Amino acid sequence: MKLVTFRSGDTTRLGVIDGDEVVDLNKADASVPSDLRAALKAGIDLNAAAQRAIASGEHRAPYASLDLAPVVPEPGKIVCLGHNFFDHAKEGGNLKPVYPLIFFRGASSLIGHEDPVIRPRVSEKLDYEAELMIVIGKRARHVKRENALDYVFGYACFNDVSVRDYQKRTSQWTIGKNFDGTGSFGPWLVTADDLPPGAEGLTLRLILNGQVMQQASTSDMIWGVAETIELLSECLTLEPGDVVAMGTPAGVGWAREPSVWLKHGDRVEVDIERVGRLQNTVQDEQNAPGA
Amino acid sequence: MKLVTFRSGDTTRLGVIDGDEVVDLNKADASVPSDLRAALKAGIDLNAAAQRAIASGEHRAPYASLDLAPVVPEPGKIVCLGHNFFDHAKEGGNLKPVYPLIFFRGASSLIGHEDPVIRPRVSEKLDYEAELMIVIGKRARHVKRENALDYVFGYACFNDVSVRDYQKRTSQWTIGKNFDGTGSFGPWLVTADDLPPGAEGLTLRLILNGQVMQQASTSDMIWGVAETIELLSECLTLEPGDVVAMGTPAGVGWAREPSVWLKHGDRVEVDIERVGRLQNTVQDEQNAPGA
Repeated sequence: MKLVTFRSGDTTRLGVIDGDEVVDLNKADASVPSDLRAALKAGIDLNAAAQRAIASGEHRAPYASLDLAPVVPEPGKIVCLGHNFFDHAKEGGNLKPVYPLIFFRGASSLIGHEDPVIRPRVSEKLDYEAELMIVIGKRARHVKRENALDYVFGYACFNDVSVRDYQKRTSQWTIGKNFDGTGSFGPWLVTADDLPPGAEGLTLRLILNGQVMQQASTSDMIWGVAETIELLSECLTLEPGDVVAMGTPAGVGWAREPSVWLKHGDRVEVDIERVGRLQNTVQDEQNAPGA
Repeated sequence: MKLVTFRSGDTTRLGVIDGDEVVDLNKADASVPSDLRAALKAGIDLNAAAQRAIASGEHRAPYASLDLAPVVPEPGKIVCLGHNFFDHAKEGGNLKPVYPLIFFRGASSLIGHEDPVIRPRVSEKLDYEAELMIVIGKRARHVKRENALDYVFGYACFNDVSVRDYQKRTSQWTIGKNFDGTGSFGPWLVTADDLPPGAEGLTLRLILNGQVMQQASTSDMIWGVAETIELLSECLTLEPGDVVAMGTPAGVGWAREPSVWLKHGDRVEVDIERVGRLQNTVQDEQNAPGA
């Protein structure tokens, strides 16, 4: 099952994809919260709700007509892993990590499929990072890897677009990972039951203006999905609607010779086999909506 | 004006302090959201609502009877500054910083006044950090320091309790700053109009079992409140109900000779002149509620 969050006036709504159409889950059943995090928190059986909505034959719109928002517009936490692929850790001059590097994003950095990636007026060092995103379905604390996948609701593509000079101004990366319009999350969520356990063995690619810049298998991650949930939940509670970005492989722009920086008009795509293809175009901040 | 968030059944409510009583703002006026972030987002005039509620003479409870929650239970973002006092940067062996170290917390780490600080089962390196917390009142993007204080709704005390071994396991501090039950935020919020501009010139102290462990003036911060809002809003949008923890002065436990680690039963207090005194007792995780 593929779920989308789409914009409707000042709010967002939840839909399920059926062929080239989307069925509005909230119109089909007013008891389904219009926000994915709220629906997961309330313990709604979204699979059953989606099946009923599709069977009703009503409340449909063409997928292509929708304005997509981030799959979870306001996650409780946006946990991000760094150096979770050996080759990427190595291109940054880092040894084999003993623990993942962890930082958080805020929801104000998130955008949806086909929203502009904003190239900020204060930096020219804008870079892409193709990643697999996990959406947590149930409260997880002190969970062991053996049953950690029970806590995953689904997966999506993530582009962890980074402002490298701000990221490296101090030891802490967070500010360079939190510019407005840099965390692309979508286009939809694929529920975990539609993918291999832990979304393993899928090809992950970053495509810039038609050229493949990053390519790896999700099996190359140092900490897989189950290990990551075990590791995080040793420290903190993962809540329904929290999300975890699993880190990026080699091939980022700053580590290339010469460096490749995103510029106005660039077309940037994250493609994950069996998950989807997330597409955005880069726009200079002064030309962006609301600038 | 002092506002509190208190627990009532499964939810939280908003109150204003009047002497030794609290007036329930939501019972006094059902149009006031029960969540401070939602109220700020909706542009509610909380000062007027509080004055009406106090004048009504109704919906009162003794302050001492309330179970206090974090002042903003679910901030959109919890931005935290590191190395914002010269003396604390120096005790960690750091030179004068050129930019603040920035990391984020998640709401799952927050606790209120008199909630237990949780000493996790996986670490013995638990440490205190007394800080001033800002609560943002209005959307701020590309704001200049000259008018940055217009965006501050109020101030509170914050104890940025840190799990030092996890904080220093990699270059990124975030995981050591996000254990459940470590970010104490309260006891109440003091609106900005009750304090000097930028909350400058106030004595900030950390008191452990009656002994002063940290003491500094808020004027000793390298980046003051206005400069911090300018600096952050250059990168990202600060939204109503976002909060910013302003960093801690010298005297933390790990930098002492010998190191001082928080242990079960310790009484830890953050006191800020004219703001308030935030008090918590440390509890081992295995003895904590919900463990």
